[in-house]
This record gives sequence, structure tokens and C-alpha cells, in this order.
Amino acid sequence: MKATAKAHTNIALIKYWGKRDEPLILPMNNSLSLTLDGFHTTTSVAFQDRLTADQFYLNNRLVEGAESRRVSIFLDLIRKEAGRTDVCAEVHSTNHVPTAAGFASSASGFAALAAAASKAIGLPVNEQELSILTRQGSGSACRSIYGGFVEWEKGTKADGSDSHAVPVAPADHWDLRVAAVVLSSDEKKVLSREGMKRTVDTSPFYPAWVQSIPDDLEAIKEGIAEKDFEKVGEIAEANCLRMHATTLAANPPFSYWHSTTLSIMQAVRQLRSDGIPAFFTIDAGPNVKVLYTPEHEDIIRNTLQNVPGVHDIKVSRPGQGVSFI
Amino acid sequence: MKATAKAHTNIALIKYWGKRDEPLILPMNNSLSLTLDGFHTTTSVAFQDRLTADQFYLNNRLVEGAESRRVSIFLDLIRKEAGRTDVCAEVHSTNHVPTAAGFASSASGFAALAAAASKAIGLPVNEQELSILTRQGSGSACRSIYGGFVEWEKGTKADGSDSHAVPVAPADHWDLRVAAVVLSSDEKKVLSREGMKRTVDTSPFYPAWVQSIPDDLEAIKEGIAEKDFEKVGEIAEANCLRMHATTLAANPPFSYWHSTTLSIMQAVRQLRSDGIPAFFTIDAGPNVKVLYTPEHEDIIRNTLQNVPGVHDIKVSRPGQGVSFI
Repeated sequence: MKATAKAHTNIALIKYWGKRDEPLILPMNNSLSLTLDGFHTTTSVAFQDRLTADQFYLNNRLVEGAESRRVSIFLDLIRKEAGRTDVCAEVHSTNHVPTAAGFASSASGFAALAAAASKAIGLPVNEQELSILTRQGSGSACRSIYGGFVEWEKGTKADGSDSHAVPVAPADHWDLRVAAVVLSSDEKKVLSREGMKRTVDTSPFYPAWVQSIPDDLEAIKEGIAEKDFEKVGEIAEANCLRMHATTLAANPPFSYWHSTTLSIMQAVRQLRSDGIPAFFTIDAGPNVKVLYTPEHEDIIRNTLQNVPGVHDIKVSRPGQGVSFI
Repeated sequence: MKATAKAHTNIALIKYWGKRDEPLILPMNNSLSLTLDGFHTTTSVAFQDRLTADQFYLNNRLVEGAESRRVSIFLDLIRKEAGRTDVCAEVHSTNHVPTAAGFASSASGFAALAAAASKAIGLPVNEQELSILTRQGSGSACRSIYGGFVEWEKGTKADGSDSHAVPVAPADHWDLRVAAVVLSSDEKKVLSREGMKRTVDTSPFYPAWVQSIPDDLEAIKEGIAEKDFEKVGEIAEANCLRMHATTLAANPPFSYWHSTTLSIMQAVRQLRSDGIPAFFTIDAGPNVKVLYTPEHEDIIRNTLQNVPGVHDIKVSRPGQGVSFI
């Protein structure tokens, strides 16, 4: 009753922003991401009769409190599905996702946990079912089940049984690069979940955000199929700006941006003015990710590293979906 | 047939953002401003039979081209109203509005021009009629006819005869301060008129912006009447952020913000966290204006001057409306 799985993080090009159901983590809109090879989590789960409580080790250290409870609550889902509510698990998780790069480790973390736990307990799940399970641990994690370009279909059912990821194009479809820009200073920030909820509840711009998604999705999927980099980049950048604009209209208003965030956005726009196609996207935090094609590696790196306030650049390629080790 | 008038600039606390009629400069929404004593324009107009063309001197230099034509086109309105389409004018204008502080000199400029020209040509106008005339030169200038807190009523008539400023509270009602923060570097920017039009035409958030204005106006006028600084500041800051959010959702998206703009916004938020009430507002450019009450003069100045990228601080008090010299 032991299994080990590896999952990569993903970067949303069409953002997941707002829940229609909080406990089931059902989104208001479809989203679309690229799984990245540079950042991953490896997780082993062993269900053992001798245990009287779950034990969660993260990077070889026993974790207690809220983070551990979140893992146990997620394991409860799997135990219930498998009809084995009586067994506890020892979970060992190793994160290769530097939080300073602004990736939530929850995406790769819950994808790896869901895969390892379901296999360990003997629950037969296909990838779609695995994505549904994963979603209930962390919304955007459901996209990390698949590699390459992935869409998360919001679904319409109240029980969430049609809200899961679907593959759009595999990792080897298109050789892109994503540079995660690491900032020198950390800022206090509004938490992603809290900011999302405040925006849904109070921003007068939120309904128009939701309405704008189908057009973005249709166009970006065309761009991916055609490998039209300008099209994909422009849609992703505009979608990110539109998402962040909803927070400025929330009550009270807030923003995830830091002055260095603006400097990087400006550097990317300047690259485009200079004829280098590059586009940015920003999640619920001050970090910026920059999309580009491999032939511009050197100029992108040099430009970004010279922006004041930038500490480091971590480059990823399209990555694979979840796998067992 | 000569007259001289002086007018001050104004800072919008509820922004004018979008036109419903371009040639007549009729706005989509009401706006509300504070006239400022620190920045003004003095303009003399002399209609003279000997002239065969208008002559426009700005800061003692003869101006030709687009800027001069804009003055002549505006004088045509006044000549037509006065039934004197046959006379040309010599116009001398002196601007005490540093463009580096991010104030449009068109507000004080057109208010002074309208007042001086209508008096010089013998056109009897009251303040409301003067505001309607001024509006057709530069929209936000119509608010500078009055001192203190001023509302620009958008009106509903197609000819614009009910779209003018109305006084809300005089300059001596409340002793506030507005610090205009001058940035070290100039940025290329999207022009105000162009950005406004692009937003109205393409931003899916624009209708919700317009719908949000009546509540803001009602609440800020209560705050002004009660001299509730927190209330007025919070509404003004949120209104400014909501306006700027509409630009991020335009197609193509754009922003007036510079990295230093964000640094100043962050410094103002930090002041509030430290118990110093201060609020920012930003027009169609990277400059920031900070509202505060006189007792916090020193800490506000010191804080803003220490923000990297800030060159200077110019402080204003509530100012008077247009006057004749």
C-alpha cells in the first residue's frame, strides 16, 4: 500500500480567478495553463495499519498544524472513495518549487499527493477522475495531471463531477520557454484565496471578467494549434492584466503588484518595441513570468537580469503530466 | 476690448473618464474636483480690428501650429456667441503649472481664456454659462470656473447646454493639502484623449465604471459636507484605482503607471498603516497626488521625498475660482 508520484507545477495563460463553490473548489471560469518542467514535487504515500494518525513530512521534516490538516482532509476524500476510512498514511513530500519564484507549490503538491495516495490505497482512477480528486485539494493543481497545454473545464454540475482538466496539446507540441523572475524583496501580500473571494464578492468588474473568458479561450487554443506565438502571448498578457484589473475595483481595492513588477512589465514591453517577441503573465503575487521562444534566450535573460529589483531568473520548458516512480 | 483673467487647475477626486460626445466634449459620467491654489494660468485677451489673424503668446513666446489653432477654434465659439465673427485677438497667456507635476495646463488655461475672451468681447455670461463655454475647450477645465470642491454635471441634452460645473463647497470650507509628486524621469505615455477613447470603445469594464459613479458621488459629497477625511480619501483613492483598472482591460491594454507610481502608492498605504491618514489619486499619467490634512505636513513631505524616483513635492491648498485682474 505504497506509491510514489511526481507532478510539475503549471502557469496559467488564461487565469483561474473566482470560485462558484468554495468547499468543492469549483471555478467561475475555464482556465488554461502550460505545465512546466522546471518545478516539481515528488510525493510518497504509504497507508499503514499501525498508524493512528496521518504523518506528513515535507522536505524530510514532520509538518503539523494547518498544512498537515489540509493533507489529512484531502486524504479523507481518497479514503472515502476507496471505502478504506480506517487507514492512516505516512506521506513524504519533496518540493522542488522555490516559493521565491512565485509558484504555488500547492499545484504540483496536490497533483502528486492525489496520484500517489490513490494508487497506494488501490483506488482505480483514470486521469480525468484523478483531476477531479486533485481539484478538491487545490483548484489549479487539477491542471498539473496533464503535461503541455491544459484546459480546466469549469463544468456546470453542483457536485463538481464535470469540473476537471483536459489536455489541449502535449509538452512536445511546441518548444516554448517560461522565465520565472525572482524578486529581491518579499512583500506582504493579500492571500490568493482571500483576494479571489473579495474580488468575486465586491468588484463591479468581476462579471465582465467572467464574460470575457470564452473568447480568450477560443482564440488562445487557435494560437496554440497554429503555434502563433504573438497571438498566444498577446491573449495571455491581456488576460492577466484583466484579472489584475478586477482587484483594483474590489472593495477595499487591492493589488498584487510591486514596483519591480511594473519595471519587469515595462522591460518586456520594451523588448517587444525592439522586435523581440516576449509576453508576461502574473499570478496572485508580485512575481512575473515571461514567455518567449528559445532563439531569444540570451537577450531575454540579459534584459530581465538587468531590471533593478530582480534577483534571479529560472527558466522552464513545457513539462510532462503526473507520473509514477 | 481687453480683459485679463486668472484660473487655477483642479484635481479630480471622482474622475472624468470617457466622452459621450467628442466634438462637444460631453462626458459619460459626472466628476468631482478640488480647485488648487498652487497652479494657475493668467491670460489676457485683446480683440483688435487691426489684426487679420489670432496671435497666441504662451509664456511670452508666439505659438503656432496645433496649439494655436486650438485657441483660435475656441475663440470662434466666443465670437459666434457674441455675434462678432469679424474680430481677431491677441492672447497672452502665462502658465504657472509645471507639466512635470502631472497637471494638465489645459484646465487652468481654458478657464482663464474663456473668462478673459468673453469679457473682452463684451459677452455677458454668468459662471454657469462660462463653464459651458470652457468645457468646449477642455473638458475638465469647466470645473476650474469655481473654487473649492466642484462637481461637473454630465447633463443629458445633446447640445451640452446642461453639462457644466456646479459648486459643492468653497475653498475655505476645509483646509486640506494636495502634494503633487514630481517624478525624476519622464515616460512615454498614452495621451489622455486617446486612452480615454480606447477605453470607452474597447474595455469590457467600462460600463461598470460608469454605473459605479453615482454611489461614489453621493458618498464623497456627504464626506465633504461632514469634513470626514477618511471617507473622502477612501472614495477618491478607490475611484482612481477603478478608473485605471478600466485601461488594463482595454484592447490593446495599457497603463499610465510607472514603477515609481507603484512605489508612491505603496508609501501612502504604509503611512496609513502607521496611523497617518493620507490617500492618493492619479490622473492619466504616471504622477501621483497625495491628499492629507495640514497637521501631517512634515511626515508626508519626508516620506514622499524619500521614495526612490521622486524628484520633488509641490504642495497646494484649496484654491479660488476664476477671477479678473
